[in-house]
Amino acid sequence: MFRALARATAALGPQAAGRVRTMASHQLLVPPPKALLKPLSIPNRLLLGPGPSNLAPRVLAAGGLQMIGHMHKEMFQIMDEIKQGIQYVFQTKNPLTLAISGSGHCALEAALFNLLEPGDSFLVGANGIWGQRAADIGERIGARVHPMIKDPGGHYTLQELEEGLARHKPVLLFLTQGESSSGVLQPLDGYGELCHRYNCLLLVDSVASLGGAPIYMDQQGIDVLYSGSQKVLNSPPGTSLLSFSEKAKYHHTTPVISLFSLRESLALIAEQGLESSWRQHREVTAYLHERLQGLGLQLFVKDPAIRLPTVTTVAAPAGYNWRDIVNYVMDHFDIEITGGLGPSLGKVLRIGLLGCNATRENVDRVIHALQEALKHCPRSKM
Amino acid sequence: MFRALARATAALGPQAAGRVRTMASHQLLVPPPKALLKPLSIPNRLLLGPGPSNLAPRVLAAGGLQMIGHMHKEMFQIMDEIKQGIQYVFQTKNPLTLAISGSGHCALEAALFNLLEPGDSFLVGANGIWGQRAADIGERIGARVHPMIKDPGGHYTLQELEEGLARHKPVLLFLTQGESSSGVLQPLDGYGELCHRYNCLLLVDSVASLGGAPIYMDQQGIDVLYSGSQKVLNSPPGTSLLSFSEKAKYHHTTPVISLFSLRESLALIAEQGLESSWRQHREVTAYLHERLQGLGLQLFVKDPAIRLPTVTTVAAPAGYNWRDIVNYVMDHFDIEITGGLGPSLGKVLRIGLLGCNATRENVDRVIHALQEALKHCPRSKM
Repeated sequence: MFRALARATAALGPQAAGRVRTMASHQLLVPPPKALLKPLSIPNRLLLGPGPSNLAPRVLAAGGLQMIGHMHKEMFQIMDEIKQGIQYVFQTKNPLTLAISGSGHCALEAALFNLLEPGDSFLVGANGIWGQRAADIGERIGARVHPMIKDPGGHYTLQELEEGLARHKPVLLFLTQGESSSGVLQPLDGYGELCHRYNCLLLVDSVASLGGAPIYMDQQGIDVLYSGSQKVLNSPPGTSLLSFSEKAKYHHTTPVISLFSLRESLALIAEQGLESSWRQHREVTAYLHERLQGLGLQLFVKDPAIRLPTVTTVAAPAGYNWRDIVNYVMDHFDIEITGGLGPSLGKVLRIGLLGCNATRENVDRVIHALQEALKHCPRSKM
Repeated sequence: MFRALARATAALGPQAAGRVRTMASHQLLVPPPKALLKPLSIPNRLLLGPGPSNLAPRVLAAGGLQMIGHMHKEMFQIMDEIKQGIQYVFQTKNPLTLAISGSGHCALEAALFNLLEPGDSFLVGANGIWGQRAADIGERIGARVHPMIKDPGGHYTLQELEEGLARHKPVLLFLTQGESSSGVLQPLDGYGELCHRYNCLLLVDSVASLGGAPIYMDQQGIDVLYSGSQKVLNSPPGTSLLSFSEKAKYHHTTPVISLFSLRESLALIAEQGLESSWRQHREVTAYLHERLQGLGLQLFVKDPAIRLPTVTTVAAPAGYNWRDIVNYVMDHFDIEITGGLGPSLGKVLRIGLLGCNATRENVDRVIHALQEALKHCPRSKM
């Protein structure tokens, strides 16, 4: 109908048509895209990279539920359950504990925008990509950013931090518990107490570690803690977890279905128990380390005490292009593992065993795939 | 095990325990929340408010799919299909057309942060809540904001805007095509051309109208256009649609499952055809208007030419508390309708017929529910 009218209008000549300011003066010039007329088809993959991980079956089911309104009473109940679930996995009683409608980056941004003012001194543990990003956001806020740069694989001792705190007198310190680009687990005991002695708040990123490695927000004196949904929690990406003590407020259409999924993720970990989840990740990842060393591969993080129990970094095997190995494992076995990220790029392969993906069976699958890759990928002469 | 070690440590006395900086010095003080140990249960509701709307069956199925990596080649294909789908529903050839990981508010923020600098003059059509929010964000950016305030139900003529453009010399004009708080459809023909004559860009919110009312981004000279996923598109909230001509860049873990859903939403509208979708909304909403008037109710927007074909505003029935009616329809029929929002609060009831919810059968259901509500809700003497 519109098209017919448009033709009739056009027949009046360009000048007359130009004066006609009605809907009918337009026509659809962009046709329906052909690619959208084909059915959606998603491959079945085992996601053993540093995340996102596969969805747990119960989380999958939540994603297939019908909508309710974001302001319905059931939704408030679910958001309250999510809050309690986050308080459990964070081990905190902070009332300001909530799910953010956005990825871990959003949670980091929300934290920094609520904690930093232009001109504030901001001390950043930059031993991988997450510290770099925190520093970037801090710069954009106009803070005086002091990155403590370390090579990938490094972590921060209490003594090193005390020097930084004394020298820069920051209002905020950023540390990453699970540095997924290097596979390092940053110790956290004593760090909150140290910061508070210097009137500094402690902000911790636990995206790649939460649920897989112990953390005790209140007992460790962590002032602000955030994490993501798509790692150990096995939820779809798109929501994140955040807890802190300052006032905040928001209102928009929340991602209802993603919140169903997050609620189910938190229910699964509440049922399993945090300590059991930590033990599962520690034991299965130890088994992975043993099998990797059995293949003759070297773990990138030398000190077992600071190896992340969720994401393992393997020194990139000498003589190979790491990309060939990653591609071989994907193409022949439908398993995702990845190379490094940021400062660890080219130096490591990364294998994530996150939540429901942390099983001995998956270790056996990825070890078999790696074995085949090492056999078949091109190798330069040593 | 942790708990047993913690007890042993405590037995050393408080001072010794204080020096022991190991995981074992902590214990879980926050127990698994009881509410999370109960199964998730979601009621079956017909969502006839101004959105979010119910999910189409094919979109529901997409939400139940397993994850793939956000950087896998299939995901790039899906994002490309989404881009083409947005170009289709927006009727634009802009290369910078994309899905945003966040609600319509995020898209508005992304648009304003890319278009406004501190000190810029920003002209805002504020005839409802969305213009107010655009003005708020503009203020926070530090722009000189000039809101053209109108009572709910009003819209802007070309002549009014020309006065504002001449007086304030703005770099940007914000208009809402579908003002869902008042039920007004803002005409758009000629507005882009007018803005460009005054060296001003035109930013349009089509959250509550896209797919239900005609829009032709390129032909109407709209410089920046955004919309949401949870209205006519019948996708879950959490993603939004945005197109503009400036450079932008982002990288984070995209909401993979939500993007599956958005792809399916766009596929449905590509299959149906935009003009058919517009016609469906116009016809079904006209039927709703006829049935509402049959109940003796008054439409809030008097001029049929500017009635939004997606969200209908009904003058709050005299003698009733509008909240009683909304609650009655929800409690007895599991149908969501809502009251007003912002400036229209207390003045209207709002009924949305969005995407797959826009059927004559749903009109009959909500009319029956309203009839019962008017019969049974308390009524003050007139």
